[in-house]
Amino acid sequence: MKNKLVITKIGGKFIDDKAKLDSFITEFSMIKSPKILIHGGGNKATEISVQLGLEPKLIEGRRITSKDDLDVVVMVYSGLINKSIVAKLQAKNCNSIGLSGADGNTITAVKRPAIDIDYGFVGDVASINTNSIEQLLNAGFTPVFSAICHDGNGQLFNTNADTIASELAISMSDKYDVDLIYHFEKDGVLDADENVMSSLNMQEYISLKSKNIIKEGMIPKVDNCFNALKNNVSIVCIGNTIIE
Amino acid sequence: MKNKLVITKIGGKFIDDKAKLDSFITEFSMIKSPKILIHGGGNKATEISVQLGLEPKLIEGRRITSKDDLDVVVMVYSGLINKSIVAKLQAKNCNSIGLSGADGNTITAVKRPAIDIDYGFVGDVASINTNSIEQLLNAGFTPVFSAICHDGNGQLFNTNADTIASELAISMSDKYDVDLIYHFEKDGVLDADENVMSSLNMQEYISLKSKNIIKEGMIPKVDNCFNALKNNVSIVCIGNTIIE
Repeated sequence: MKNKLVITKIGGKFIDDKAKLDSFITEFSMIKSPKILIHGGGNKATEISVQLGLEPKLIEGRRITSKDDLDVVVMVYSGLINKSIVAKLQAKNCNSIGLSGADGNTITAVKRPAIDIDYGFVGDVASINTNSIEQLLNAGFTPVFSAICHDGNGQLFNTNADTIASELAISMSDKYDVDLIYHFEKDGVLDADENVMSSLNMQEYISLKSKNIIKEGMIPKVDNCFNALKNNVSIVCIGNTIIE
Repeated sequence: MKNKLVITKIGGKFIDDKAKLDSFITEFSMIKSPKILIHGGGNKATEISVQLGLEPKLIEGRRITSKDDLDVVVMVYSGLINKSIVAKLQAKNCNSIGLSGADGNTITAVKRPAIDIDYGFVGDVASINTNSIEQLLNAGFTPVFSAICHDGNGQLFNTNADTIASELAISMSDKYDVDLIYHFEKDGVLDADENVMSSLNMQEYISLKSKNIIKEGMIPKVDNCFNALKNNVSIVCIGNTIIE
């Protein structure tokens, strides 16, 4: 039988809410099984960018990452947010270790191909080094990933945290019985009446999507979840909604 | 017989010189024995502080660290500089892992007591978790430390990188045969004619200090070295100068 591994991703707006973050940290630290946390960016990167006189460029909701923008996201995600979360977890006796994909060569990425749009220093996950991550878990550490990866040739890339979470979950499923949980500002996937759904299957998803009830940023999130389920991840949740 | 461990600290101005840093990275990655790198901050933190409208406050050459200043040094030291160095080392097949003292609970610090001056969020090294560091070394990782520590209660502190290097070297000497090397913008300790000394003993140090030839920032650096030597570190160098 495989050992349980809990992989949790927390979104940016969740991180910006100090009370929500602190109560999450307490709950997460109490999970007994090996666990991994992946965090998004929050508003801080945009705040710092504006203060530094950079102009955030978004195309269809996606951030174009210039060299200067990359410096800011590396500073904010892998520096300020990552170390703050690690220090908070340590205070709860969770022996966390903050990582980018470059650390321990855990996650490589390739530059997103510039087909219609050149996203700059945005990368897509290329490979997960499960041995490296397993060594850290076996040593009793709780990896805390920021969404910064490297290409193995010295270049860092801004990478999507939701995708890192699902790719990590899929890769680690070879060795572990993986639960993948997405936490964000809402308590789960909402139905037509804005109530949190206790579960969501593919048929319901297709129907709710066609009615524009599940829409926008939620679509890639749910797609990531179904993809993880198809690829041997045991349990997948968005907040309190179980994806079936 | 103990295994060899090389602990190298690189200074801020060294980091700002891209050519110097790149050639150091190549040399460091070729060290065969287990190794640890500690890096300083460089000019980037001051640059970012000024751009963010913060006013760097220095008293007798020492930085007063407000809450906002702390955010900047955590971003720049543990984020931008640390991850850039880690990615460069990975490109040379050195399996580096970037750490603050909070990561893996490796180094704790206590707030520097406000006797005459309150330095704010500046910490002095309190404890080194040699077990945690040994686990990383045994797993084949090369730890790369930024000079940010934590107090175990969720608070990060700005800490002196030279002191972290000597304290690490002293603590790890229980288990390893440690070489401690300080690299900075000069090639070593300079004599009256500004030539690099091949060695420096305590008697020469006292004499050169009294003549104001060894002065200012070099004094705590040399003091750290003699302290490490007294505490079982095998070999201590400042650049190419062996401290005896």
